[in-house]
Amino acid sequence: MTSYAPEVRLGADPAVLYARVQQFYAGQVALLDDLRAEEFAATFTADGVFVPSPHAPALRGRTAIAAGLRAAHARKFGAEPVRRRHWFNMLRVDPDPDGTLRAHYYTLVAVTHPWHATPVIGPSAVVEDVLVHDEATGTLLTRERRVTPDHLSF
Amino acid sequence: MTSYAPEVRLGADPAVLYARVQQFYAGQVALLDDLRAEEFAATFTADGVFVPSPHAPALRGRTAIAAGLRAAHARKFGAEPVRRRHWFNMLRVDPDPDGTLRAHYYTLVAVTHPWHATPVIGPSAVVEDVLVHDEATGTLLTRERRVTPDHLSF
Amino acid sequence: MTSYAPEVRLGADPAVLYARVQQFYAGQVALLDDLRAEEFAATFTADGVFVPSPHAPALRGRTAIAAGLRAAHARKFGAEPVRRRHWFNMLRVDPDPDGTLRAHYYTLVAVTHPWHATPVIGPSAVVEDVLVHDEATGTLLTRERRVTPDHLSF
Repeated sequence: MTSYAPEVRLGADPAVLYARVQQFYAGQVALLDDLRAEEFAATFTADGVFVPSPHAPALRGRTAIAAGLRAAHARKFGAEPVRRRHWFNMLRVDPDPDGTLRAHYYTLVAVTHPWHATPVIGPSAVVEDVLVHDEATGTLLTRERRVTPDHLSF
Repeated sequence: MTSYAPEVRLGADPAVLYARVQQFYAGQVALLDDLRAEEFAATFTADGVFVPSPHAPALRGRTAIAAGLRAAHARKFGAEPVRRRHWFNMLRVDPDPDGTLRAHYYTLVAVTHPWHATPVIGPSAVVEDVLVHDEATGTLLTRERRVTPDHLSF
Repeated sequence: MTSYAPEVRLGADPAVLYARVQQFYAGQVALLDDLRAEEFAATFTADGVFVPSPHAPALRGRTAIAAGLRAAHARKFGAEPVRRRHWFNMLRVDPDPDGTLRAHYYTLVAVTHPWHATPVIGPSAVVEDVLVHDEATGTLLTRERRVTPDHLSF
């Protein structure tokens, strides 16, 4: 059983925290957008939980997260060739009393089809993450992700 | 009369400045997008000025800002249920000789209607803010905001 | 011949690096979007290379970069009045062993026409930059930029 730091060892400097979380997300999103499902899932803790929508069942653990990602992609796009780009914005990072980080941000997805210069700008959503610092690797990991697409939030 | 610091007490570190301004905006935008008009107005100084367009009258003071925000929303959307998300990007932060901060950034608005996954991407604008550090609370406040929507800038 | 620092003199602090690169891009993009072609080109090194697409010839040196920017704008928009806004997102910054910085990010372009509040959201692309620190001015400069528009990446 992997153990996680009782507190995120990033020091108290909010600028360091902000930059580290942004860089973590940039790396995580590259894996998501390239559909490298297992590598994306490995950016979650072993017991990580991913709730892609309030109406969807929670994906628990890396195997489920990777499988859920592939299944969602197949459901949306079938074998159609697309480039997906997730955009994050308006990030807030709040250290929790228990030493984890709460991150809150907006997302949009830009979906491009071959030879069409104009992407389809996909759902707008709000995401709430719990991030932890992994002692073993010195990196951040996502322990929880809850996505609320705006069109399902009324 | 509230007094503001003669200089923003953020130290000289541009990374700290950048992260603090970003986090300030993320919090301010959440209030804007939830149409919590009074709380949004409270992120301005008591004598704050908000100019939503070069063609619109300036809103002066928190009461006017809150009322202006509600009126603009009613004018655009009536009672129609929508989720608005303001996106900020390409932020520049420049400390002014008088100790205030000048911030300059791009904005877009993503407007989502119930059950429609594709948001309407609203006006693109350029915003210029003057920010001050509030001694009493230790937070940033907006003293001036001038919005220039691109479609009205020709 | 201008000489560039063998290493980017930004200290080891990734937060400082992140903020400086973001601020550099915000300034560079303002020149790009205002079509101040020579000033934009001056944010590249004298021997800078700009590859706007895998299918386009590389622009080498500031004169070529400025001319290429004007030509691309004329080709896309002719004399049509437009406001272009480049958005950057999901920035990763990695210091290279040789002391340069590798930056990787997503871009979108929002193009607004007079009196139309809804911009056209233009190509989604991935950009890879090599940045260097200019000893003479203390600023960053772009030594290489390779843009891969998503619709041409299949």
